[in-house]
Amino acid sequence: MGLDHAGRRARFSDALAAAGVDLAFCPPSGDLEYLTGFPRRLASFGNFEYANQWVAGALFRPGTEPVYVIPQGYAAFNLPGGVNGEVVAVANADDAAAIFAGLLRRGGAPRTVAVSARAMGATVVRILQALPEVRLVDLDTVLGPLRRVKSADELAALERASLICDTVMAEITSSVAAGTTELEIASEVDYLMRRHGGRTPSFDTGVFAMGPGDGRDATTRVSVNALVEGLGVSFDFGTVVDGYCSDFGRTIQLGEPGPEYREVYEIVIAAQAAGIAAAIPGNTAAEVHRATRQVIVDAGYGDWFRHRTGHCIGLDTHERPFISEEDHTVLEEGMTFTIEPSVFRPGRVGARVEDLFVCEPGGARSLNRYHRDMVVV
Amino acid sequence: MGLDHAGRRARFSDALAAAGVDLAFCPPSGDLEYLTGFPRRLASFGNFEYANQWVAGALFRPGTEPVYVIPQGYAAFNLPGGVNGEVVAVANADDAAAIFAGLLRRGGAPRTVAVSARAMGATVVRILQALPEVRLVDLDTVLGPLRRVKSADELAALERASLICDTVMAEITSSVAAGTTELEIASEVDYLMRRHGGRTPSFDTGVFAMGPGDGRDATTRVSVNALVEGLGVSFDFGTVVDGYCSDFGRTIQLGEPGPEYREVYEIVIAAQAAGIAAAIPGNTAAEVHRATRQVIVDAGYGDWFRHRTGHCIGLDTHERPFISEEDHTVLEEGMTFTIEPSVFRPGRVGARVEDLFVCEPGGARSLNRYHRDMVVV
Repeated sequence: MGLDHAGRRARFSDALAAAGVDLAFCPPSGDLEYLTGFPRRLASFGNFEYANQWVAGALFRPGTEPVYVIPQGYAAFNLPGGVNGEVVAVANADDAAAIFAGLLRRGGAPRTVAVSARAMGATVVRILQALPEVRLVDLDTVLGPLRRVKSADELAALERASLICDTVMAEITSSVAAGTTELEIASEVDYLMRRHGGRTPSFDTGVFAMGPGDGRDATTRVSVNALVEGLGVSFDFGTVVDGYCSDFGRTIQLGEPGPEYREVYEIVIAAQAAGIAAAIPGNTAAEVHRATRQVIVDAGYGDWFRHRTGHCIGLDTHERPFISEEDHTVLEEGMTFTIEPSVFRPGRVGARVEDLFVCEPGGARSLNRYHRDMVVV
Repeated sequence: MGLDHAGRRARFSDALAAAGVDLAFCPPSGDLEYLTGFPRRLASFGNFEYANQWVAGALFRPGTEPVYVIPQGYAAFNLPGGVNGEVVAVANADDAAAIFAGLLRRGGAPRTVAVSARAMGATVVRILQALPEVRLVDLDTVLGPLRRVKSADELAALERASLICDTVMAEITSSVAAGTTELEIASEVDYLMRRHGGRTPSFDTGVFAMGPGDGRDATTRVSVNALVEGLGVSFDFGTVVDGYCSDFGRTIQLGEPGPEYREVYEIVIAAQAAGIAAAIPGNTAAEVHRATRQVIVDAGYGDWFRHRTGHCIGLDTHERPFISEEDHTVLEEGMTFTIEPSVFRPGRVGARVEDLFVCEPGGARSLNRYHRDMVVV
């Protein structure tokens, strides 16, 4: 792997101290995986919860190694490799609140505690019960700046995750045929990504057909509809390698495209190219969004590009900065993000192109290698 | 649908008032779906996040209708049907913290605020910034008791979700063959569940082979290993209908079973039967666990039944009470839960049976109809 967790923790420790944070809490999350390699469980739609689930995670104090707090159910089925370091095991019948309060106050009650943005509300409530006078801050303000610039090892993981998408896109193309359902294709995408070594989809796979005579819009990401000739089939998928997420998209036309599809396809490719050119160190995320969007607005399709241009990506699918109108973060070398312009106009046309890029002095470099030529099947 | 959201909100309002809670916050979650029908997004492994994601949800005050707070990105792609009621839209460039603080203080600053157990830590931090004197409580203490007993309409949804599992189990059996990989079978299970109308898997599907000569344990829920003769293949899957989750399991033997598999299979069936008999109104969750577990302990396999007997289930996969040693909640008519004893002994044998039950005066009634006979393929 080569991911330098110890170095990350050293920088994090310094950042905590500089921010005046006495203690930080991370549940199993991208934050905790970044700092320690502690693996996240796969996502579940319905809450997946063991006794004392809220206590699961690790506590960090500047200048010391983390203390892991692990409920019995989590340890039994989600940590086959265990954890290197101090572990406080919490049995199902234990008084988790008392154990947790003791750990929070170890060495003196902290005045300022940072919690992961995705920590459970139930955990934060218990921190406040244990430390009524505490000042709480969002850990993202401390850890976000460390996570956003990727190391060579992180780029390698993101590239492996992206190349799986390229491979799957090439393989799935032959499945796009009239009569096949979107669900069948999406299921095959999910299977192929895992077959090629991805741990899980990084988000719910989208396969949706749009075009003349079909009123559906892009809010339904997969249907059980059978594909019919004349529609553009948009793909949006990604997978996870060593914890790092990919995110990729193309649109394939089924049957001979009409003039509007041909026009729109070239527009989204041109919009992405404008974004790529703008995505250099020193420009802001908002500037990349504006450069991308302007191409679509100039072509008269601005009303149908209804989302931000992209988002940073790493251990999480959507990381800050967002490549979006409101985000004025200055891009730095080593940031990784998607550029994914679309035109989704229900009943008429739908097309999107999406790749994962790393910001470099010479411009944004794609970690995907899949071509962007129009594909008609 | 027939799900009585207005009636639920009325009971919730009374419960908030009785608990001295002035305001409650629910993000998109089982809690919010229970109270309003507001749909959850599908789960994603890497965080899926729009600008101001932390503000998404609804605020409830006793005696009033909820106020929905919906960021632009969430509204654009996740709420095609909109929401009935007051909606405060938050654009990407808006000052979400100021808008949220204004809503929290509308009509006077609340003294006690309840937050969903799964609310984002980032949201709770901002509640505290807006209301430094507030007392925070875990909403589960108020809403959990309302959610745990299911109505006839909820039971109907759980039964539909469970019957999809039954159908898929019957269909997938013919795919269990030497040379087929666990991943191929799990992908087919996921596809079939959606094909039969499930919205999504309710949790990550498990298909894992155990038995003589195979050292893997049950922490790896799916591998890319090809199945070989002589192993027991355990299934653990569920899907979602109208927001309600199912959770089902069987083990199928591939090739002629040895005497230990035959013995263990009967033990887990007998253990489940003991749990069913114990799961009557008035008994505690812990008593059901003990009755189930005792059968396995008496048979000498106690060390290999490493988890709780089950958990309640509804809009979430794991709801309280848990059918577990530490949970002394008294069961009531209309509670729904799994009884899922296992014996997972690496290198030797693995078998589990799991169905979804509703607590009734005559005993636990299964919402699954799939048989429990030993299957050898």
